[in-house]
Amino acid sequence: MSDNTVLQPLKGFRQLYPSEKVIQSFVLQKAREIAKLYGFEEYDGPMLEPIELYLNKSSRELVEEQSFKVIDKNDKTYLMRPEMTPTLARMIAAKENSLTLPVRFSNIGLRYRYEAPQKGRDREFYQMDFDIIGSNSTIADAEIISIAVSLLKSCGATEKDFVLYINSRETLTKTLIEFGIAEKNIKKVISIIDKRDKVEKPVFVKMLQDASLSSGQIASINNLLDNPIEYEKSFAEILKLIDSYGISEFVKVNPAIVRGLDYYTGIVFEAKSKGPLGRSLLGGGRYDNLVSGYGAKQKLGGVGFATSDSILIAFLGDSNLLPELNSVPSQVFVSIFDESTLDNSLRLARKLRENNIPTEVYPEVGVKLDKQFKYASAKQIPFVAIIGPDEAKNGTVTVKNMNDRTQEKLSIAELIEKLKNQAL
Amino acid sequence: MSDNTVLQPLKGFRQLYPSEKVIQSFVLQKAREIAKLYGFEEYDGPMLEPIELYLNKSSRELVEEQSFKVIDKNDKTYLMRPEMTPTLARMIAAKENSLTLPVRFSNIGLRYRYEAPQKGRDREFYQMDFDIIGSNSTIADAEIISIAVSLLKSCGATEKDFVLYINSRETLTKTLIEFGIAEKNIKKVISIIDKRDKVEKPVFVKMLQDASLSSGQIASINNLLDNPIEYEKSFAEILKLIDSYGISEFVKVNPAIVRGLDYYTGIVFEAKSKGPLGRSLLGGGRYDNLVSGYGAKQKLGGVGFATSDSILIAFLGDSNLLPELNSVPSQVFVSIFDESTLDNSLRLARKLRENNIPTEVYPEVGVKLDKQFKYASAKQIPFVAIIGPDEAKNGTVTVKNMNDRTQEKLSIAELIEKLKNQAL
Repeated sequence: MSDNTVLQPLKGFRQLYPSEKVIQSFVLQKAREIAKLYGFEEYDGPMLEPIELYLNKSSRELVEEQSFKVIDKNDKTYLMRPEMTPTLARMIAAKENSLTLPVRFSNIGLRYRYEAPQKGRDREFYQMDFDIIGSNSTIADAEIISIAVSLLKSCGATEKDFVLYINSRETLTKTLIEFGIAEKNIKKVISIIDKRDKVEKPVFVKMLQDASLSSGQIASINNLLDNPIEYEKSFAEILKLIDSYGISEFVKVNPAIVRGLDYYTGIVFEAKSKGPLGRSLLGGGRYDNLVSGYGAKQKLGGVGFATSDSILIAFLGDSNLLPELNSVPSQVFVSIFDESTLDNSLRLARKLRENNIPTEVYPEVGVKLDKQFKYASAKQIPFVAIIGPDEAKNGTVTVKNMNDRTQEKLSIAELIEKLKNQAL
Repeated sequence: MSDNTVLQPLKGFRQLYPSEKVIQSFVLQKAREIAKLYGFEEYDGPMLEPIELYLNKSSRELVEEQSFKVIDKNDKTYLMRPEMTPTLARMIAAKENSLTLPVRFSNIGLRYRYEAPQKGRDREFYQMDFDIIGSNSTIADAEIISIAVSLLKSCGATEKDFVLYINSRETLTKTLIEFGIAEKNIKKVISIIDKRDKVEKPVFVKMLQDASLSSGQIASINNLLDNPIEYEKSFAEILKLIDSYGISEFVKVNPAIVRGLDYYTGIVFEAKSKGPLGRSLLGGGRYDNLVSGYGAKQKLGGVGFATSDSILIAFLGDSNLLPELNSVPSQVFVSIFDESTLDNSLRLARKLRENNIPTEVYPEVGVKLDKQFKYASAKQIPFVAIIGPDEAKNGTVTVKNMNDRTQEKLSIAELIEKLKNQAL
């Protein structure tokens, strides 16, 4: 059984030892705090969904090529969910008449994508989704963008570390039509614009030529992308709101941002790292037809964004923003002196825990104190408690401070008081 | 697209609206708090694992019949993890020389079992695992049992609500051999004992007869199960420790408890609801050969237990222990009076959030205040803030207390102070 396929986790999947898990938890906790701060309610959905849920909604690539499939006993195909928004739209559609709209819903959960793993991208990752559904207002758009910025700021990032680009599919479409591009060609042209940052300029021009654009139209597009000052005027309303939210320094109009998902209809945005990572940190947009696509009678517009633990951790690492975190929560390590004081030591641990102090007990009798100290030190536990025969007789405990190596004899009540103050 | 297969979540899978999710989060949060209190480090593992990881380790039934399978492009079979302990054992084996042993590891994560859903059992559920690995000591056993009891107690349960049964596979085996039962027959007999609570007495006797037991041996087994006073003497050491932990009133020796997983070697235990649910709430035991089964050079004994959100929620519901929880975290609802004060209202929301006060903004302009109050009331948000033209001019805000319907005019600083004190 020392077979490598069993001893190795699946490629792109997560096997996190505590020193890695604690970093993930740090990032997920930031998302939970921001969700709470903005009044979001958490929901959840199934990990497996019928493939039909995603067809004609998410991108074709995502559904057909980048998914993990489960086939059940009736030969029905399910996907391990690659994204959450279709599930959410179905949930909203099913209760459109009983929910208090607009809803602010968030989810922190695993997603699966069968892509090539790279820095900041895994096949298994936690995605954090924030959506406001049931409002067509630009205020909802600005609120969502404010949450995206707040999340990155709460992790310690500043405007030196990232920029949030906004665009509008509606405005871009209107502009392209003004350039004389045929309506049936718009979707194709937008998907080419989406690739501009990934290819050389001549390749980009060639792609537009292949889409039957005239050289005048291509010049107009290049001019738009290089110099969007006129284009920006269409964003006056949202930029004013963004000023009220106090996040203008993070936000910039960028006509080249279009986002990959098919269901976006209005504003789209994405935050990009300014550092060496240079990757998209989060993305989102407005989707006004998705919920009715799942049977809602009302036209319920939505706006939301998502980010992942993988990309946030890579970003914070690259930006030197990851704090030092100890995966061991214990404030005190209760050593076992010998068999005669075992009961006293266990009762001490119990008292400490009853007082809400994270406490570890050494689970062996007859191990030298030196070895126990080494254990506590390796785990960076700040205090070690020792009850030997003297302490047991007097109802006291010797407490060693593992940082400054001092020690003192305290009553159990004094120890509890000391550790409680320490925790503040 | 109003197809039912898409509009319904998969059978036994979770689709949780916020009012349900908040209950799940309550239970998972209790597990996190207990993990911290006992000094456990959180780890995580992949959702998909090669089927070989479980073969000859978990129960055959679990692996072959009760699992969701994913087959990759190379025709290799993976399971959506039905349990976590094999993953953990692999992780420990892979780092046996660099980890500070014994480790206290916990995981809260999704598991999948293709079983018939029933009350307290779903196909998709969060399992909470607690394990101490690298200690063969009975103190580790008692510590794990103490955690199990503490978790249920922290949810509000008392000895009126549950009992924790302990047994030992080793002691039971030794006793059965003393009854003259052949060693090769022991595993079979233990699996019959495991079923005793699920069948009528004559069926149980018949099963033992079919396993070639003499009537004398059957009488000995029945006597053991009905009257384990002599048997209990083998548990003196752990019962003494359990007394030190202060949880004697919850713990009872029961020779019929054997647990289903093949890897248990020593103590096994399970907590049972005393109420109408009458189900097993959590289970665990000692597994001394599992980690070496994954290639560890040292013999690293482990002990642990697991429970699930499904069973805990069902248990707490049946025992009337579920608190009233509001899924909406907002402390204050900032209404939008009109376009002229929109900027003031958004800036107020921003200030409140900067002061860590969960705040919701109404995302529409031009909606009557009455309707906005109804929205805040439906979501049980305790305070509504209003900035009309007067307030905007004076830099004040009118605050309505939604519980007693009183209202007052405050400066923004006063409002922040008020809401901060409210949160304490």
